[in-house]
Amino acid sequence: MSTALLSALRTVVGAANVMVEGDLSAYELDWRRRYRGKALAVVRPANPTEVAAVVKLCARHGAGLVPQGGNTGLVGGSVPDGSGTQVLLSLQRMNKVRAIDEANLTMTVEAGCILQAAQQAAAARGLLFPLSLAAEGSCTIGGNLATNAGGTQVLRYGNARELCLGLEVVNADGELWDGLVGLRKDNTGYDLRDLFIGSEGTLGIITAATLKLYPQPAARTTALASLETLPNAVALLQMAQARLGAGLTGFEVMNRFSLSLVRKHFPQLRQPLPEAEWTVLLEQSDTESEAHARALFEGLLESAMDAGLITDAAVAESIEQSRAMWHLRESIPLAQPEEGPNIKHDISLPVSCIPEFVAKTDAALHAAHPGTRSVNFGHLGDGNLHYNLQAPLGVDGAEFLRLHEPSVNTIVYDAVTAYGGSISAEHGVGALKRDELTHRKSPVALQMMRAIKRALDPQGLMNPGRVL
Amino acid sequence: MSTALLSALRTVVGAANVMVEGDLSAYELDWRRRYRGKALAVVRPANPTEVAAVVKLCARHGAGLVPQGGNTGLVGGSVPDGSGTQVLLSLQRMNKVRAIDEANLTMTVEAGCILQAAQQAAAARGLLFPLSLAAEGSCTIGGNLATNAGGTQVLRYGNARELCLGLEVVNADGELWDGLVGLRKDNTGYDLRDLFIGSEGTLGIITAATLKLYPQPAARTTALASLETLPNAVALLQMAQARLGAGLTGFEVMNRFSLSLVRKHFPQLRQPLPEAEWTVLLEQSDTESEAHARALFEGLLESAMDAGLITDAAVAESIEQSRAMWHLRESIPLAQPEEGPNIKHDISLPVSCIPEFVAKTDAALHAAHPGTRSVNFGHLGDGNLHYNLQAPLGVDGAEFLRLHEPSVNTIVYDAVTAYGGSISAEHGVGALKRDELTHRKSPVALQMMRAIKRALDPQGLMNPGRVL
Repeated sequence: MSTALLSALRTVVGAANVMVEGDLSAYELDWRRRYRGKALAVVRPANPTEVAAVVKLCARHGAGLVPQGGNTGLVGGSVPDGSGTQVLLSLQRMNKVRAIDEANLTMTVEAGCILQAAQQAAAARGLLFPLSLAAEGSCTIGGNLATNAGGTQVLRYGNARELCLGLEVVNADGELWDGLVGLRKDNTGYDLRDLFIGSEGTLGIITAATLKLYPQPAARTTALASLETLPNAVALLQMAQARLGAGLTGFEVMNRFSLSLVRKHFPQLRQPLPEAEWTVLLEQSDTESEAHARALFEGLLESAMDAGLITDAAVAESIEQSRAMWHLRESIPLAQPEEGPNIKHDISLPVSCIPEFVAKTDAALHAAHPGTRSVNFGHLGDGNLHYNLQAPLGVDGAEFLRLHEPSVNTIVYDAVTAYGGSISAEHGVGALKRDELTHRKSPVALQMMRAIKRALDPQGLMNPGRVL
Repeated sequence: MSTALLSALRTVVGAANVMVEGDLSAYELDWRRRYRGKALAVVRPANPTEVAAVVKLCARHGAGLVPQGGNTGLVGGSVPDGSGTQVLLSLQRMNKVRAIDEANLTMTVEAGCILQAAQQAAAARGLLFPLSLAAEGSCTIGGNLATNAGGTQVLRYGNARELCLGLEVVNADGELWDGLVGLRKDNTGYDLRDLFIGSEGTLGIITAATLKLYPQPAARTTALASLETLPNAVALLQMAQARLGAGLTGFEVMNRFSLSLVRKHFPQLRQPLPEAEWTVLLEQSDTESEAHARALFEGLLESAMDAGLITDAAVAESIEQSRAMWHLRESIPLAQPEEGPNIKHDISLPVSCIPEFVAKTDAALHAAHPGTRSVNFGHLGDGNLHYNLQAPLGVDGAEFLRLHEPSVNTIVYDAVTAYGGSISAEHGVGALKRDELTHRKSPVALQMMRAIKRALDPQGLMNPGRVL
């Protein structure tokens, strides 16, 4: 059976692109090294027609298909299970920028195009593709869309979903749907595009997308501000939104401990402000000029100081200083593992509930697990926190995780649910949160999702065991 | 059968809210007076629980359900058919603003809330709900979402879809799904929200929504500009987007004939600029001040003049002048019927293709139907044209429509298809464009839509005969 399938796959994509031997860990081991699978084969089609043929073959042979882009996902959604029966479909070879339409402000790229390459292709025309996240040097547009990636500019430009106008998809029947429209308005039937976006490969395989572009801002400025409390951060966000409008492109929050980890493990990084309970990173994009941006920023921070919202602030004087401020923020997830394994949560909440959520949940966690340390940082402007827990000092992190992860998750997710939040803000469900989702999502929603899955993938071969 | 259903419906919503007699034309006749149906009853539930009970009753009795908000749709999607067997479900009584969360910039409103009431509720808190369209005094949020309404601020804020974070829906099983999340990021499973948005009541009934709010801009300014060609309008759009960024909240285009209809039928309206081949209305929203807005606008128009893109311009000096400029634009659809019946198209195209599309399609139409007059106006910034055709002078409009509408539609829609456009940009499909959709949409897309319809509404009772 599998021999026949392998041989047919070789005919479709060429023998060199059906990999069954050697070290396939780049495809079979996930980014966080929590999931190691075994594929029947790693198949690397060159174009949508080949993808369609591969899907048809797998359907005929009843083989499950796991699509993969850069394999940078954090929830175990893009590696095969251990059965050795699933076909790993790598989109890597399909990495072309097919077209850029400057007057329409759109770009059509293939699923395997690296996010950074897409950003650069837009920049080469003086335009901005604003999706930006830590893995941008490795992750692909297809994966970004399949997981509805978020990142650092969601506040202004939205998630991957909001940046996509059209899709090309191979569905579970192996039929190619050309939905690559470059239209801002199109009300002709059900929104298939948004159904595939965020479905993590369980309904079909995204092979290309038409994306929105924006004019490059004339200037970008960054500032750091120190705050005594989290309610002050929410008030500062409101003030910044009112005064800067769409100019406010980033609003990140970091608690004292998260920046102290950076201080400890990356002492070479200069921290412009002394330690504070909370630090906010603000980014402003300006259509006029550097000077105009700086003046607006200084006015805002002065008002915030007068209102008692912030205790200290530093505005970047150059692009290098801006980069250094972002680098601090981006170093938090890198400093964490240096301190030892930790329990991660990618949650979102209504912004208005965040201070109370954090106060109560911190207290509940520290009461249940004395000495634990909360790493709390994230995209406050989007209501998205990376709310992680580090083992007590001197306690083995791996052991702590093994013993307490379920109980910690219950405390956090119960609180998230109580405040109307989400247990997966931007990372998706994958394999990691599948059971949690079944437990947390409303039965009516789950029933509708399952009906859609059955309708579009009746054989259940598209990324089996993920999401639902 | 129907007696039993009517009696059960009376038990659920009260006898006074099951209307079967008297003049029901407000519910049975559509806005454009093209569709007149006959309902088994007009049922007006007071809350989502009653909606759920009504849906369950209709499912038990096999009765079709037509949901209706303000009944302002333009494609015959919200009136019953003529069979006298369909239940018209009016959401009018469910019109509460349930909550406004200022720090989260969200508002939760019921489906029957009039759009203008939602705008006003936001404004009362100093916030902006930016959805805005001609019918805003009568249309409802539920209808806006069911049809993914567009309007005049899509360029900056997106369609109804982009303004919605969460939904409450009664599905075809009569189960209430509480998806009223107020989250900017939530990647927990399939995007049911966007599936219901734009599905025109054919998958379930939207009963409430959580919507995005924005800070009110500090100032809004409007300008008119005269242009010799449509390519110049596209170039002006690019320049305005680059210079004003998200500050550009409106970019409307009007051809000479469309404004001449306003001149002829509403001579009391002052036209600030002399007649020109093309006129563009620009709107800018500014977070700083009136003076800053005006200065930016004047700089832009000066550069456009220097670049030879525009031949004349007028910047509004007051809110009244701004309103008067918008009033001109909004008077075009009102001036058209004064000139006689016309053939309407609500199309979208990649912005870059619009000049060529218009030149070629105008020529094809005038060749096939000599003497016809093209009314061409719309939201150029969104690639959305209201591309209508008026009968030749002296020819009876109704007769022209009767004879030539199919052939005119074929010319227009063939060209739209050739340029990768959409035959329904913002009005939806309803009954009017259902056959056209079947003919124009890709078979793969239609097949997936039908599979979803069967999965979520197996009895086919939700707004039967619409969309698919």
